[in-house]
Amino acid sequence: MDTKRILAAATAVAGLVLASGLVAAPKPEDAVKYRQGVLFAMGWNVGTMGAMVKGDIPFDAARFAFLAERTAQLSPMVREGFTPDSKGAKSHALPELWDNIDDFEKRMKDLNAATQALATTAKGGDEGKTKEQFGATVKVCKGCHDEYREEM
Amino acid sequence: MDTKRILAAATAVAGLVLASGLVAAPKPEDAVKYRQGVLFAMGWNVGTMGAMVKGDIPFDAARFAFLAERTAQLSPMVREGFTPDSKGAKSHALPELWDNIDDFEKRMKDLNAATQALATTAKGGDEGKTKEQFGATVKVCKGCHDEYREEM
Repeated sequence: MDTKRILAAATAVAGLVLASGLVAAPKPEDAVKYRQGVLFAMGWNVGTMGAMVKGDIPFDAARFAFLAERTAQLSPMVREGFTPDSKGAKSHALPELWDNIDDFEKRMKDLNAATQALATTAKGGDEGKTKEQFGATVKVCKGCHDEYREEM
Repeated sequence: MDTKRILAAATAVAGLVLASGLVAAPKPEDAVKYRQGVLFAMGWNVGTMGAMVKGDIPFDAARFAFLAERTAQLSPMVREGFTPDSKGAKSHALPELWDNIDDFEKRMKDLNAATQALATTAKGGDEGKTKEQFGATVKVCKGCHDEYREEM
């Protein structure tokens, strides 16, 4: 172990951590900011896929597969932002989410499966199948929003 | 192709897209929000790894490898948020970033390589090597922040 290098790393990360306001035990408001960031990034990718499905922009199979892969990577990151002590933090989550945490867990798992299925299908390159799987996937998004997110 | 299903998908995504404010050609302020979301999510993962490197929390090789993998997945997502027309949008990016876009590109590629190296090293499970690689990785973060991000 090279102590000097580790010390340099520790100093550099201390600066990063101070800048981002993050510490080992994240503050409830940072947990909210984290999950909102991940969800917004998902929406960024989903939005372009949706524009292709709706026909607002041409269907580009390679680009769609890329965006679907990104979405599948982001999906499992969402859950961690729902830390127990973020229950009381200001966010768009409804109290019902915390009262039905097992259902929420199931929906998160369904989302992971649906985004993974979309990434796999899109990679296959069949436009019709990809659009169908996209429909199934956004239904999972929407289902959870309808239950546990305030109206936006 | 099942037209009914595709129509259902289109309707569902229209709702999502309206809710998130995202459209096919993202607005400059959404590009900023996207990249800030991805960067915050990276910081969330890096913060906990940093706490392990600093010794604020015990070093947990499996957890570290998990966080490093997440960081490596998020890293390549950052660049896309720097859309050309987000140059004028309110953000923490300095004008120098846009004047040195080739250097910025290089730093983004270095970040992808460094986070990937960290994920690979952490997966190997050697604590000393992992901490060293963490130091090298956060230096890449810090280098770009020092050059192209306003003081925070």
